[in-house]
Amino acid sequence: MRAQSKALLLIGDGMGDRPIAELGHRTPLEAAHTPCMDRLAREGECGLMDPIAPGIRAGSDTAHLALLGYDPYQVYTGRGPFEALGIGMEVRGGDVALRCNFSTVDENWRVIDRRAGRITQGTAELARAVNGVEIEGVQCFFKESVAHRGALLLRGEGLSARITDVDPHTEGEFVRECRPLDPQDEAAQRTARVVNAFVRLSYERLKEHPINRERVAQGLLPANIILPRGAGVAPHLEPFPQRHGVRAAAVVETGLIRGIARFVGMETRDAPGTTGGLDSDLMSMGHTLLQALQEYDFILCNVKAPDLCGHDGNPHQKVEVIERMDAMLRLVLESAEPNLYICLTADHSTPCSVRDHSGDPVPLVLWGPDLRGDEVQAFHERACMRGGLGRLRGSDLVPILTQLMGVQEKFGA
Amino acid sequence: MRAQSKALLLIGDGMGDRPIAELGHRTPLEAAHTPCMDRLAREGECGLMDPIAPGIRAGSDTAHLALLGYDPYQVYTGRGPFEALGIGMEVRGGDVALRCNFSTVDENWRVIDRRAGRITQGTAELARAVNGVEIEGVQCFFKESVAHRGALLLRGEGLSARITDVDPHTEGEFVRECRPLDPQDEAAQRTARVVNAFVRLSYERLKEHPINRERVAQGLLPANIILPRGAGVAPHLEPFPQRHGVRAAAVVETGLIRGIARFVGMETRDAPGTTGGLDSDLMSMGHTLLQALQEYDFILCNVKAPDLCGHDGNPHQKVEVIERMDAMLRLVLESAEPNLYICLTADHSTPCSVRDHSGDPVPLVLWGPDLRGDEVQAFHERACMRGGLGRLRGSDLVPILTQLMGVQEKFGA
Repeated sequence: MRAQSKALLLIGDGMGDRPIAELGHRTPLEAAHTPCMDRLAREGECGLMDPIAPGIRAGSDTAHLALLGYDPYQVYTGRGPFEALGIGMEVRGGDVALRCNFSTVDENWRVIDRRAGRITQGTAELARAVNGVEIEGVQCFFKESVAHRGALLLRGEGLSARITDVDPHTEGEFVRECRPLDPQDEAAQRTARVVNAFVRLSYERLKEHPINRERVAQGLLPANIILPRGAGVAPHLEPFPQRHGVRAAAVVETGLIRGIARFVGMETRDAPGTTGGLDSDLMSMGHTLLQALQEYDFILCNVKAPDLCGHDGNPHQKVEVIERMDAMLRLVLESAEPNLYICLTADHSTPCSVRDHSGDPVPLVLWGPDLRGDEVQAFHERACMRGGLGRLRGSDLVPILTQLMGVQEKFGA
Repeated sequence: MRAQSKALLLIGDGMGDRPIAELGHRTPLEAAHTPCMDRLAREGECGLMDPIAPGIRAGSDTAHLALLGYDPYQVYTGRGPFEALGIGMEVRGGDVALRCNFSTVDENWRVIDRRAGRITQGTAELARAVNGVEIEGVQCFFKESVAHRGALLLRGEGLSARITDVDPHTEGEFVRECRPLDPQDEAAQRTARVVNAFVRLSYERLKEHPINRERVAQGLLPANIILPRGAGVAPHLEPFPQRHGVRAAAVVETGLIRGIARFVGMETRDAPGTTGGLDSDLMSMGHTLLQALQEYDFILCNVKAPDLCGHDGNPHQKVEVIERMDAMLRLVLESAEPNLYICLTADHSTPCSVRDHSGDPVPLVLWGPDLRGDEVQAFHERACMRGGLGRLRGSDLVPILTQLMGVQEKFGA
């Protein structure tokens, strides 16, 4: 089946909020001047959406899996694979991934500092020293993340994530041996052996590494070992384009969302000047979006800034970035083909009063040709409560969009 | 995690209803003068709730399990354990419980009367004669309920509820031997042997019991055997306080709800003068509630009276008890701390016209700090249809409350 229409799923990360006293008891979406979002609401259909389920505090990763039609309770078995995706590692179904710390141990492997003196410099070079080794036929990829953090990815046949942590989680204790959760589980036995060998190798290669010699010379703790924890297995997913018969791409700013998009088989297009920060060039993102809409049927776009303002507890800045997002939307609306559907929503609420993700539902608008419409005149949390779409879940979006696009097979006769 | 806020889940048992001609085609909630409930609606967010799922006629037991976040389709495997809870027996995960009748059999164990002449007196003494025996290492607890009813609770290793009924369900037939549903199932074999031994023991100890000698002397049928049926196994549940990281208590009136609350690990606080009847002292309940809110983070409160009026088909009395519940709510609102969330709803509808539980959704209001609010001005079935919460399920309540209370872990990153 060939798509008759195209769809843009436009996500304001963490855009949902609660009423805020300094905005006159309005939410940032209520306070912001958003003529284009309001036009979508006036001409389209609105509703409230629970990204995962009512009251559930979604992460950006679990929420985007749900919005793309994958059940996070099925596919999100541990944070390891999504940490790895977030720092730009290529993750394939069946890979086992672990979160890691660069740590400091003494010669008996007693942990002196789980965070290696909160190391910030030189971790890329340390990572290169251990990246790409092969142990028992298993490829071991390691990449540094922010500060003392990193991820270890194991790729090979017969691996399992049902293993214990090496990291003892407490300073003063000895490094733990990785063990299978079930002693009879051969895949877990093998994976544990590989992890233990990798930890030994990390100590051998890092303890005298020039970066660490220099740290010691400067009176800093050496990052002389890598301690993995939180193993998870990357799920085997049916790629989004095959599942829905569409060409799909993501125009996103952060490593985590880019990683998820690639993991589900979407192409990615990076817009020049987008940073994932408050200074991100959203007009550039709009132009990249329009180009991508020429080539692809389904575009996921995530704008990160509203979430940052929520975490910072800065409602005025949240209003401002929402208004910049509205300007980006204007650009898209001015050039959009008449067969474009736009679904504008958020992946979760990040209320400025909470400074973290909450379980509040988010507003949702669906705009495009041939919709029934409703009476909602503005795009914000309270107006959308009265929308014709009612209260949906994140997992409902893809079926709604694919049926409008004309690419969904009929279920039954 | 420590709760930043507290929550009161206030249930008017069977409070939902349908329009009634003699109330001017209004429901009891519409006809009642409820300034405090209406204040919650005006200041909070409203919706309709299906305790289990749309159209499903919920029992008070299955509904409360759902409202407390336990899937009744998973945990409610048979009525036995909940009958036992309802009459105040202590039930633990893994216990097998059976509903029982005191019955009358002849010397060949042909059933003369399944209800032992509808015996009402002396059953506590008869129950004591068989309570607490041990058979094959299994502890057998028996307690009388109303009239000819009782419950048998089996506690021990390797038990199963996959067994047949002893009660033949028809007079004139012989008592049936308890058998495993699957002849290869060793746990069921053993459980059946224990049940058969208990039934024999009940006959031996009851046939010449002084209570029964006196019944025969008075021309009444002797309650000379106990016939079990409807075996169920009590599920192993993660206790509510551990699951959610809150201190939780129930202020309730009936044995069944008290039993469920204790079974999920909540403490219970009894209010003096509460009877579970129409004469229950609801102001006393309000005072006990306020005390409990000092000690606990999460309080379940169930007021039984509206359900009784529904079963009696008495709409005017239902209006009156709803107004008394509103007075209790006034007391709570006058003394509540500013960090209190109140969720007011019903566990099911008991329409006066039906005189039993119906599958109609119930009104719901959520009130407390930092909510978005909606335009609903009154708390009743039809006003809540237009509420900002839309249509929820009972199982949504606990996630919604725990995220507002600040005790819910984020799912993902």
